[in-house]
Amino acid sequence: LTKDSNDKFEKLNRKALSAAEAQALILQHASYAAAEELDLIDAIGRRLADDIKTREPIPHFRRSGMDGYAVLAEDVADASSSKPIVLEVAEHIPCGTAPKKKLVSGQASRIMTGGMVPDGADTVIMQEAAELVSINNREYVHIRKSTQLGSHITPIGEEAESGQMLLSSGQTIGAGSIAILASLGYARVKVFTKPKVAIISTGTELLEPSEPLQAGKIRNSNAYMIAAQVIAAGGEPLLIGQISDVYEQAETLLYELLNSEVDLIVTTGGVSVGDYDIMADFFTKWNGTTLFNKIRMRPGSPTTVGLWNNKLLFGLSGNPSACFVGFELFVRPLLHAMQREVTPIACEHSAFLAEDYMKVNAYTRYVRGRWYSENARLYALPVGLDKSSAMVTLKDANCLIVIPPTTTGLKAGEQVKIVQL
Amino acid sequence: LTKDSNDKFEKLNRKALSAAEAQALILQHASYAAAEELDLIDAIGRRLADDIKTREPIPHFRRSGMDGYAVLAEDVADASSSKPIVLEVAEHIPCGTAPKKKLVSGQASRIMTGGMVPDGADTVIMQEAAELVSINNREYVHIRKSTQLGSHITPIGEEAESGQMLLSSGQTIGAGSIAILASLGYARVKVFTKPKVAIISTGTELLEPSEPLQAGKIRNSNAYMIAAQVIAAGGEPLLIGQISDVYEQAETLLYELLNSEVDLIVTTGGVSVGDYDIMADFFTKWNGTTLFNKIRMRPGSPTTVGLWNNKLLFGLSGNPSACFVGFELFVRPLLHAMQREVTPIACEHSAFLAEDYMKVNAYTRYVRGRWYSENARLYALPVGLDKSSAMVTLKDANCLIVIPPTTTGLKAGEQVKIVQL
Repeated sequence: LTKDSNDKFEKLNRKALSAAEAQALILQHASYAAAEELDLIDAIGRRLADDIKTREPIPHFRRSGMDGYAVLAEDVADASSSKPIVLEVAEHIPCGTAPKKKLVSGQASRIMTGGMVPDGADTVIMQEAAELVSINNREYVHIRKSTQLGSHITPIGEEAESGQMLLSSGQTIGAGSIAILASLGYARVKVFTKPKVAIISTGTELLEPSEPLQAGKIRNSNAYMIAAQVIAAGGEPLLIGQISDVYEQAETLLYELLNSEVDLIVTTGGVSVGDYDIMADFFTKWNGTTLFNKIRMRPGSPTTVGLWNNKLLFGLSGNPSACFVGFELFVRPLLHAMQREVTPIACEHSAFLAEDYMKVNAYTRYVRGRWYSENARLYALPVGLDKSSAMVTLKDANCLIVIPPTTTGLKAGEQVKIVQL
Repeated sequence: LTKDSNDKFEKLNRKALSAAEAQALILQHASYAAAEELDLIDAIGRRLADDIKTREPIPHFRRSGMDGYAVLAEDVADASSSKPIVLEVAEHIPCGTAPKKKLVSGQASRIMTGGMVPDGADTVIMQEAAELVSINNREYVHIRKSTQLGSHITPIGEEAESGQMLLSSGQTIGAGSIAILASLGYARVKVFTKPKVAIISTGTELLEPSEPLQAGKIRNSNAYMIAAQVIAAGGEPLLIGQISDVYEQAETLLYELLNSEVDLIVTTGGVSVGDYDIMADFFTKWNGTTLFNKIRMRPGSPTTVGLWNNKLLFGLSGNPSACFVGFELFVRPLLHAMQREVTPIACEHSAFLAEDYMKVNAYTRYVRGRWYSENARLYALPVGLDKSSAMVTLKDANCLIVIPPTTTGLKAGEQVKIVQL
């Protein structure tokens, strides 16, 4: 065999992995992104690089849950509308003010929701069951109702003990977690840097979005699609550009990027077995390790991934749908793993297929679909054109429907797995 | 009645709306945000301010779906492995190159996936069913299989006709829609500006995240939580700061903001009927229109919304959970409507309650929960502490479970509505 026919042989005789095997292989080579410290407000949407523990209990003082009066439960045990108990008002405690007086029997302190319950008090009576009266410039409160000991007082540490872990490294900072960080006093917080993803589109047919159409040519949409997917996965897209199907040009650019500071590289197009499939050629000739170059799935079976000094190079298919699916199944989990997501591979849900899907498949097929719910049941409906070359219906998908290998197709009502997008 | 007792009367005697009535009332006063034009890559995550129509059909040329040979179906109708049909190769058509020759009977053109099918040809034969041979420097292809007329050719306009509307104003630009925009030649695109949301926290008890704790005081978490919610809803948060419960200070700041360039204002705290509830006082005394100051819901029944020259002022409760729910139910729909989201109010799904919820309610209760699926069924589980003062469990919620008014509680397995977060 000559070198060239050997290459051709390798191109055509590929050993196919399952999608799950391919994902596992990729994740073996994931390493954590570097950490950086940001102002809290700038950290929204980023992933924590540290576990977060409380330094003090939450709440750190006994907190009133009502506007009302702090009292001793014993004092008001016999209170009723017909026989109110009269207590002397020791002080008024607005929120944010430490009580000045320890409560003793016969006394009550006016207190607001969120206020600090004074020592001595063990119960808060809501203001609807009380009436303030002034006699000779002294305030008294008439309590018309007894209540359970401890009522309307949130004890110290009820939400969290001191030293309790509340957030784990890898969690995305959203509304709930930033509230915790602010409460715990994190004015700045350590997060993972966004992995830098270089994006290259290959194909002599590609025009820039700003160029007018020409016969046989199309505008490059994959690079922008991948950029949006990178951002959604917490990465930083770098649009390196598009190159025509000239091998030497691609090779030079790829080695330059492999040796640069980018964290990973995603190419689109040229991974199949056509005459000008330069990425397939590259993966045959390069000095890196090609992890796999075929997956038992549709679309995107020629998806190829290689390793170069701990840096992963993804050769995604150029067909829009195959490119999209390839990113979701293989690049997104890596980006998540680099930011310590606990379950980097998207959870699958099960759903009832909403209409027949009669296409037969030797391979597992990832069909773009829309999931919806009805009567607490999940349904998934394939959306429109499902050719791997079809681009316009991608926008309608909110899930990928996983159709296992089948010689008969699937009927409406059968259960399928879906991957939420 | 004196002015003061009149205020008190108004504070205590509020007319309560349902959450749906309150939402409808707010949306009556929504107006579209201004539009701005951005580079396509910077528009990811933003909402389109224009409808997007195709200018040319997609695809705009007959596109090959395979690596193979463009032929006339008639020519190869009798092809078989034992009796291959031999055709002369007219030319090679790589992707991105317009064919130079019109095919005539007896000819084939080598073509790649995505390539432009030459005039004259009506079918593409995949390369697996063909063999290229060279005789006297001329190329011929042996076709071993017939195929259906039109096979592996995507006709002009199959994905979209010329002039077809593909994206509507208000749609968020994600992976699927940016692919369309790039294909259609939108190097720049008009999107809605992010509505500017001023955020003020009220409460003498509030410390900055950078400050050490003090007796009776807590760090301000609501402002950061709201900021994260604003960003998730496509707005731009402006952290104006926190103010203590001093009426004149609040009044000055509020009028300043009401007359400023911000699009809406969200305050947290001070809307209830306590002694220092300055927002409740403000809504009683101001010159704007208070749309409502009570909602038949928990948490957050004192949520108050007012209108000042087409600008909405939201008085959310200071309790973290009530504040969170108030934003999701009332502010988020407004932000979505300002960016022309078709369904600004989040769709409700139904789910099976995963465990008993025995709390009785006179009002509809929005309980933080986690939804998950099992066997294509949706379940919703309340998460941890559900007091409106509880903050640490907000991070665990991915939905709000809607518990209707009940005197008996709800049993596991009953269907409930959920609002996905």
